[in-house]
Amino acid sequence: MSLLSDVLTTVFSRSNRRRLLSAPDNRSTEALIGDLLSGHGEISGMTTAAQILDRYGELDDAGKLAFFDHLSEGLGIDIGEVRAALDAFEAEPGQGSYGAFLKAAEPRRQELARRLNRVPGATPQLVAMRSDLLRLIPRKDPRARIDLDFQHLFASWFNRGFLVLRRINWESPAQILEKIIAYEAVHAIHSWDDLRRRVEPSDRRCFAFFHPAMPDEPLIFVEVALTKGIPGSVQGLLTEGRAPLAAEEADTAVFYSISNCQAGLAGISFGNSLIKQVAEDLAAELPNLSTFVTLSPIPTLTKWMAEQGIDPDKLDDDGLKSVAAQFLLHAKRGDGMPYDPVARFHLGNGAYVYAVHAGADLSKKGMAESAGAMVNYRYEAESFAENHERFAGQQEVVASKAVRALVKTPAAA
Amino acid sequence: MSLLSDVLTTVFSRSNRRRLLSAPDNRSTEALIGDLLSGHGEISGMTTAAQILDRYGELDDAGKLAFFDHLSEGLGIDIGEVRAALDAFEAEPGQGSYGAFLKAAEPRRQELARRLNRVPGATPQLVAMRSDLLRLIPRKDPRARIDLDFQHLFASWFNRGFLVLRRINWESPAQILEKIIAYEAVHAIHSWDDLRRRVEPSDRRCFAFFHPAMPDEPLIFVEVALTKGIPGSVQGLLTEGRAPLAAEEADTAVFYSISNCQAGLAGISFGNSLIKQVAEDLAAELPNLSTFVTLSPIPTLTKWMAEQGIDPDKLDDDGLKSVAAQFLLHAKRGDGMPYDPVARFHLGNGAYVYAVHAGADLSKKGMAESAGAMVNYRYEAESFAENHERFAGQQEVVASKAVRALVKTPAAA
Amino acid sequence: MSLLSDVLTTVFSRSNRRRLLSAPDNRSTEALIGDLLSGHGEISGMTTAAQILDRYGELDDAGKLAFFDHLSEGLGIDIGEVRAALDAFEAEPGQGSYGAFLKAAEPRRQELARRLNRVPGATPQLVAMRSDLLRLIPRKDPRARIDLDFQHLFASWFNRGFLVLRRINWESPAQILEKIIAYEAVHAIHSWDDLRRRVEPSDRRCFAFFHPAMPDEPLIFVEVALTKGIPGSVQGLLTEGRAPLAAEEADTAVFYSISNCQAGLAGISFGNSLIKQVAEDLAAELPNLSTFVTLSPIPTLTKWMAEQGIDPDKLDDDGLKSVAAQFLLHAKRGDGMPYDPVARFHLGNGAYVYAVHAGADLSKKGMAESAGAMVNYRYEAESFAENHERFAGQQEVVASKAVRALVKTPAAA
Amino acid sequence: MSLLSDVLTTVFSRSNRRRLLSAPDNRSTEALIGDLLSGHGEISGMTTAAQILDRYGELDDAGKLAFFDHLSEGLGIDIGEVRAALDAFEAEPGQGSYGAFLKAAEPRRQELARRLNRVPGATPQLVAMRSDLLRLIPRKDPRARIDLDFQHLFASWFNRGFLVLRRINWESPAQILEKIIAYEAVHAIHSWDDLRRRVEPSDRRCFAFFHPAMPDEPLIFVEVALTKGIPGSVQGLLTEGRAPLAAEEADTAVFYSISNCQAGLAGISFGNSLIKQVAEDLAAELPNLSTFVTLSPIPTLTKWMAEQGIDPDKLDDDGLKSVAAQFLLHAKRGDGMPYDPVARFHLGNGAYVYAVHAGADLSKKGMAESAGAMVNYRYEAESFAENHERFAGQQEVVASKAVRALVKTPAAA
Repeated sequence: MSLLSDVLTTVFSRSNRRRLLSAPDNRSTEALIGDLLSGHGEISGMTTAAQILDRYGELDDAGKLAFFDHLSEGLGIDIGEVRAALDAFEAEPGQGSYGAFLKAAEPRRQELARRLNRVPGATPQLVAMRSDLLRLIPRKDPRARIDLDFQHLFASWFNRGFLVLRRINWESPAQILEKIIAYEAVHAIHSWDDLRRRVEPSDRRCFAFFHPAMPDEPLIFVEVALTKGIPGSVQGLLTEGRAPLAAEEADTAVFYSISNCQAGLAGISFGNSLIKQVAEDLAAELPNLSTFVTLSPIPTLTKWMAEQGIDPDKLDDDGLKSVAAQFLLHAKRGDGMPYDPVARFHLGNGAYVYAVHAGADLSKKGMAESAGAMVNYRYEAESFAENHERFAGQQEVVASKAVRALVKTPAAA
Repeated sequence: MSLLSDVLTTVFSRSNRRRLLSAPDNRSTEALIGDLLSGHGEISGMTTAAQILDRYGELDDAGKLAFFDHLSEGLGIDIGEVRAALDAFEAEPGQGSYGAFLKAAEPRRQELARRLNRVPGATPQLVAMRSDLLRLIPRKDPRARIDLDFQHLFASWFNRGFLVLRRINWESPAQILEKIIAYEAVHAIHSWDDLRRRVEPSDRRCFAFFHPAMPDEPLIFVEVALTKGIPGSVQGLLTEGRAPLAAEEADTAVFYSISNCQAGLAGISFGNSLIKQVAEDLAAELPNLSTFVTLSPIPTLTKWMAEQGIDPDKLDDDGLKSVAAQFLLHAKRGDGMPYDPVARFHLGNGAYVYAVHAGADLSKKGMAESAGAMVNYRYEAESFAENHERFAGQQEVVASKAVRALVKTPAAA
Repeated sequence: MSLLSDVLTTVFSRSNRRRLLSAPDNRSTEALIGDLLSGHGEISGMTTAAQILDRYGELDDAGKLAFFDHLSEGLGIDIGEVRAALDAFEAEPGQGSYGAFLKAAEPRRQELARRLNRVPGATPQLVAMRSDLLRLIPRKDPRARIDLDFQHLFASWFNRGFLVLRRINWESPAQILEKIIAYEAVHAIHSWDDLRRRVEPSDRRCFAFFHPAMPDEPLIFVEVALTKGIPGSVQGLLTEGRAPLAAEEADTAVFYSISNCQAGLAGISFGNSLIKQVAEDLAAELPNLSTFVTLSPIPTLTKWMAEQGIDPDKLDDDGLKSVAAQFLLHAKRGDGMPYDPVARFHLGNGAYVYAVHAGADLSKKGMAESAGAMVNYRYEAESFAENHERFAGQQEVVASKAVRALVKTPAAA
Repeated sequence: MSLLSDVLTTVFSRSNRRRLLSAPDNRSTEALIGDLLSGHGEISGMTTAAQILDRYGELDDAGKLAFFDHLSEGLGIDIGEVRAALDAFEAEPGQGSYGAFLKAAEPRRQELARRLNRVPGATPQLVAMRSDLLRLIPRKDPRARIDLDFQHLFASWFNRGFLVLRRINWESPAQILEKIIAYEAVHAIHSWDDLRRRVEPSDRRCFAFFHPAMPDEPLIFVEVALTKGIPGSVQGLLTEGRAPLAAEEADTAVFYSISNCQAGLAGISFGNSLIKQVAEDLAAELPNLSTFVTLSPIPTLTKWMAEQGIDPDKLDDDGLKSVAAQFLLHAKRGDGMPYDPVARFHLGNGAYVYAVHAGADLSKKGMAESAGAMVNYRYEAESFAENHERFAGQQEVVASKAVRALVKTPAAA
């Protein structure tokens, strides 16, 4: 057997959890958890951990809630212990007292998750566990605090430095492609032929981040169209029977869809670096590319218009563009950040509002959410830092002169 | 380009850190660190992080010590803040107060390491950083406490669930093989031909753990000989010009060398699961294998004999075996654990002392450390759990009847 | 870039034919062919060859016929030259005279094909060329003889020793899978979901032969169902919503569909070794498999029944089985070989007729061709050689006792 | 198991010939060959073929000669049969008569080789068989004519279109690298460290052609140095402790060593396309490369000088250069082709003599063969075709003005 296959077999092995269980263990799950956490050796620990994961996998929602109750009540910090360790460290700040403090201050459920993760194939199960947690426990519920422990661990495990960027195309495994179909959240993919139109033509690209411990599961993906000039509607991009452009002839890369795939990784941000890295890679591959923009939805526009008493049906295209520009530049949440979540994402990445379009997404969803309006956010290496500074520092929304002009000349009302 | 090469290029890309630096930044490293930690966005953060790593890479030892001083003094916890956050959490244990406590209780240098790690190729640099730390700062030095933060992070990042087992053989890349030569710590590999004798014959195996973010760097490796019967000397195993056995004919797998490769990962244990997983894989591949043993050095035997006033030159083979058995079963450290570190490792894994041999390692090192004695620790699936229980619980060293008999009939003195 | 990706990139490179053409060449294709055949060096030859292939690719059917005319008329053997070379070799049988004979006796179009094949990506183009030939020139046409030259070359190039067996499953590239859908010739695949039912479940397998110079093109593939016992109908195998069997629990491997993919490789046999190798591989992977059978159509049964004046509508199931058994065992072509082509294939491989079933293929095609009857041919390692001997030697159709009994008790007429 | 590993396992499987032999067959090898050639089915044929190859592998030289005798005497063409088939084809040139002629005119040993090749792993064995043939039978021996049959088959099997170009570097498998060490025929590689100096530095490249059926065996490889300017000595290139150049800064690619690896493929030319393809690939990767030259030995210079009565010891550097230029431009074999084989190779590829150097190869071999002189042949895309035309057509050796000038001013004699 060659090294080639060794590597692939082990890196990408389905990681079917080994049959580690010799005999069924009759103790309660709480007892098994206690055993795993007190465990002296990794070996019996693996068996115990596998058993806990197996049992969790068979729980119904009530059982899962009970499991989370145990995590919440039984495996947090002991406030008295933390305080004592802190005092001891303050009195004599050596390695011993520091270690004791670190141990006391870390809730035991974090160590539990790390020990569960030693089992082959456990990582996606733990991600699914957090997905259950987010689904079952409302944010205001005090038990929701245990999500912070998951977040903390996942931010460490899914650190950008551990992610792998893979191109998705028509040569990708069917089992990856079917997940792209399932997870596409912006412009739905209706069939395998529809998918093919997004990944196979010479002027289309799709990239996803993967984690080596979840090789079959894309974490987030972006769809890109290579075009001449900046397109103003998504219909043009997705139309059937287009004559594709040779990639070398394109001057513009349009990021027209970005979708997160894992509910259990909500809030673990890697989207910003995805766009940036894809832009870098495309620029290296295709030297003629000079413009990098999104073609983005404005998912909260009609909601805001309703709040403002603006009737979309009374607006012509220019009127809609003007309202959309006004919305993007000036509509804010309570905390001063933009009202629109997509705007927050791209502006937070250092992009700026480049152009707005009417009649740009005529799908049912597009009409319902934004009356058909869309927006290009532009990514420019030269202005990243400054845009970001202005946005993050003064909450200023940077926009092109043309978009700013739209606001100055409001639509006839 | 096919998916195959996409995957491989990205998973195993050399990860040459991208040239992220546009212009040199004249601020102090402390200022850059402050910037990175306060950073609002990932994008400018990558540039800053790359710059900090670059600067660290060019520091001399004095500069590194200054860097560690800053980690130690400037980036720890604020005791007052922790105490306040703890009080607030105690008063009202909600998600907000819990998050505030977690943030306060985690030293900022941990977040620094996570942010540095976002830079492609940073992981091996951070491992090297800890290796510097261990080399430069004595354990008793109060600054040594920052090693606990590295340990904490690395235990999470190098979690067993993220490691990949790869077979090392004569088809492995030369750049991996040269590291096997360099890192072999038990029985030195003298040349490429010597290496070949350990990895190419049908009755030899070598396996290593890798982390996907360090694909060129084995973390730990084990060398295995497939034999008929349990061998009593390492000379027999390593001799030139042996006629190799067909793997299918072997009944015994002998783990005769285990070497850690990364000084920066000292104390991050994955060795125990390596042996266990290799044993499982070999058992699945070669159903005739029924016995799994080590052929291990006893590196502290002569040291202990000197302490006991025993002169190895006065012992014949039986005498040496008896002393070695006595040593392995009864010589303890202050904490009641076995005196010998290799014994601690295998007994802690659930193995037991199966046989001792004289004249088993006639190399200069073997004679100096153990007067030529070696030991087989045996790994038996049936007795793992109980052995481990007895060892971890009552510090009892489990041994075969034959070895116990050696102790009962001490050598003539 | 790692070796891994080097290998893959080159082995599986799309082999886009390089832009070898500097300037258009105004000479006729005949002149280019002459140039290529007389060419002294490989270098200019590559350009010329690429040009010939490009021109061929743009020909319409009339143009292709003219091209084949030239192959047929202008690039055969020179009978006088062969005769002279033969005389000279007879007179003095040395290396020189032998070489001269070999050269004279080989039609120049064979050397042409070899030189065309030097261009990267040419192999599938040459296969397509033969496919055109078979389509455009009737077998009786004297020009059809040039097909023998293609056959001769392809038998050498697609020698069993050069083929690669690959498993096709749900992890296979979409572009391979869509070809499986397109090429399935026995039981049509209606959709991607239908395909998935054939390749994803634990008790389904699909394997194909590939040639390294055509990595995206399966040559022939076989679909296998793992079952308990020998199934008597294809409906049972292909039904939706089955509960799949664990592969380890199966005792029988059923080859229920074999499809050739390349019209241009008609008559180049590799199907027999496909079944044999798949059976070997499955037996190695799944030791519980003890029975290897096909579930095969009888595509000429109703045609033969019509010739015999047997009306399928007047037969009950037992009657149909009896007629089918009679047909399989005794209906012959003029040359004494079985009437049914599928029977010829499997009997020629050393299989024997194991069982016949009525109501076994209720699809429109199955009813039309065989009135719903199907047959199991059984592959037994122990009887291969003898079955084959009896069939190849005495044209005897070996059958199980049960099938022979069916013939003895003919259906009521 | 993923497709990735499927592909790799099958493409690059060690192809250990399967244990196809059930029971030993007592018939003579001649009988087995007869059986294989008359064989009706592929299945028993595989067993027979494997047996023939196994027996051949155990023969001593006398046995091999007897085997070749049988190939030569018993498996050639039947002259009378060929003549009859030719007459029949002439009389009625249909597909049947043509097929009968093709069959008669092809010596049966070619079909034998094709059938032997069906056994997995047979290809390298057949290459080794030809290597035995070339070693054991002198070219003048009438039996040597059977080599033409091997040549014919191998030219078809090892067609350029089937070869794979792989980069060889320090990440290549050790088992490939050890073959590079063994096969280097121009400038011997003395150790693994010496090898590393040729494949690891940023300004060094090595490429080899492989055949997919012999994935562990390079067929031919070329070593390349990337330099600034055209180097005039090999010592400079191979010196230890050089500071390597960044590849992007090089303007010149120097092909300083080309070695054939397989004695059994002698005369099957693929070297010319190797240089051309490597040059193309390097030009695509490194746009700054503008010059492609060799630094070549002149292996027959001193031999020719001795024939001419020229004493190298009496020549200074200028004198030697002049004599070398004279030799390269004007010394011819009986057939009008250049005296020097390396010159024939590169000039035949369309390169021209660009510069000659004295003191350029001070190794023992270099001094003995060429008194230390070396030559640059230059490959220029613009002049390929014309150079080749002049060389192949009029046997004219194209040279730079500078080299021609050297000839005009002969060394002092």
